[in-house]
Amino acid sequence: MRTLKLTLSYDGTDFVGWQRQEVGRSIQGEIERALGEIEGRPVTVHGAGRTDAGVHALGQVASVRLAHRIETDALVRALNTKLPVAIRVWQVAEAKDRFHARFGAKRKSYRYQIETGAIADPFLCRYAWRVTDRLDVDRMRMAAVALTGERDFAAFQAAGASAASTVRTVHSLTVEPHGPTSPLKTPGLTITVTGDGFLRHMVRIIAGTLVDAGAGRREAGDMAGVLASRDRSRAGPTAPPQGLFLVSVIYA
Amino acid sequence: MRTLKLTLSYDGTDFVGWQRQEVGRSIQGEIERALGEIEGRPVTVHGAGRTDAGVHALGQVASVRLAHRIETDALVRALNTKLPVAIRVWQVAEAKDRFHARFGAKRKSYRYQIETGAIADPFLCRYAWRVTDRLDVDRMRMAAVALTGERDFAAFQAAGASAASTVRTVHSLTVEPHGPTSPLKTPGLTITVTGDGFLRHMVRIIAGTLVDAGAGRREAGDMAGVLASRDRSRAGPTAPPQGLFLVSVIYA
Repeated sequence: MRTLKLTLSYDGTDFVGWQRQEVGRSIQGEIERALGEIEGRPVTVHGAGRTDAGVHALGQVASVRLAHRIETDALVRALNTKLPVAIRVWQVAEAKDRFHARFGAKRKSYRYQIETGAIADPFLCRYAWRVTDRLDVDRMRMAAVALTGERDFAAFQAAGASAASTVRTVHSLTVEPHGPTSPLKTPGLTITVTGDGFLRHMVRIIAGTLVDAGAGRREAGDMAGVLASRDRSRAGPTAPPQGLFLVSVIYA
Repeated sequence: MRTLKLTLSYDGTDFVGWQRQEVGRSIQGEIERALGEIEGRPVTVHGAGRTDAGVHALGQVASVRLAHRIETDALVRALNTKLPVAIRVWQVAEAKDRFHARFGAKRKSYRYQIETGAIADPFLCRYAWRVTDRLDVDRMRMAAVALTGERDFAAFQAAGASAASTVRTVHSLTVEPHGPTSPLKTPGLTITVTGDGFLRHMVRIIAGTLVDAGAGRREAGDMAGVLASRDRSRAGPTAPPQGLFLVSVIYA
């Protein structure tokens, strides 16, 4: 058996998310189906980030163990032939036997896109959160600073989720006043976050909380208190899934 | 009765095109439905360009006659509430009584987007034509020059179409080596054309012919002969609809 590392992109709009579900098309399910056709038996794929329904990926990483000896470049081509065009495999590489895309990930980067135009942009409804509040980028950046570093992010975890530890390190969290890419050049903001790992909905709750701060609905200096509370209800709303992109995953 | 000029954008992917059809959702049909709900009786809308299924618009213009006295800004908001988010009205303005979006149009600009990456971009499959040939931009530009000016574009008209005159003036036709906007920064080309009017499929046939020239499948110097032939079979293929955007319409 060989272990392979796959790097892939997808438009998550029309999927139930990364994880295989009882009903509906999942990214994992589509990739397992395509790989299973090549391998000739069912295979299991592990993704670095289990993105939710509607969430996209520019550089998701997945691992799989295969017996088939197909060359890696030929496997890229074969997979892209079998997959819907909304999912594209960019690279397949041989990996160490014990490589596991999720457990081995050292850092992940996510981007959250916000559109702020007066009119909703038809070319962004799948790829951004439309916010109609006037957003003060400096206030958002002040709040972001307080969320950077090793912190207990219990307040920024989906209600009902139960990670063993809720301490995570956010290496960087930036807010840039340039919008998502659209032919209409609609204005917007991009939040980019890199960390050693993320709790369920953590990036979307951070985005929702930064927007609250930018809109003046909460004090930018309030973040330490929210973190200390460990109380989900003290943080902001969960931003909708379509603005979120898993950008890259770093190992080693 | 007042005459109104509407400016709008749409993502044409999920529509049968601008024109109302027996079956399927059309842009015109959606706008007529929304306006009809406000007016309280059926209304007819005229669009500057009758875009095909899958073709998009950044700045389509439409005209309509209404008895209702709703203010123009309120009408923008009311329409956007009633329309699917894939169609957005940007502006409604009072127009002269005899204003007609199609017959009054003096110039139109279209953009045709091509993606040229090694792997298809999941975020462009709705918005660009993926071309895997190596394209020589200089050759495309040489061919474009020969198609600029007042010409008989009979060879660049959909087979079976029957415009009274096939002479049109192309004011400018440019090829730029920067691609469509994608978060994956996939490389590509953009063809932009402005003219006094376009025959059915003319922009898509021009795009297909320029790609043929860029790929070396035909001589860039061949265009005069194609125009002179007035023969559709001498021009290149009709590029697929998803790469085409109606950018703007100029009156006066």
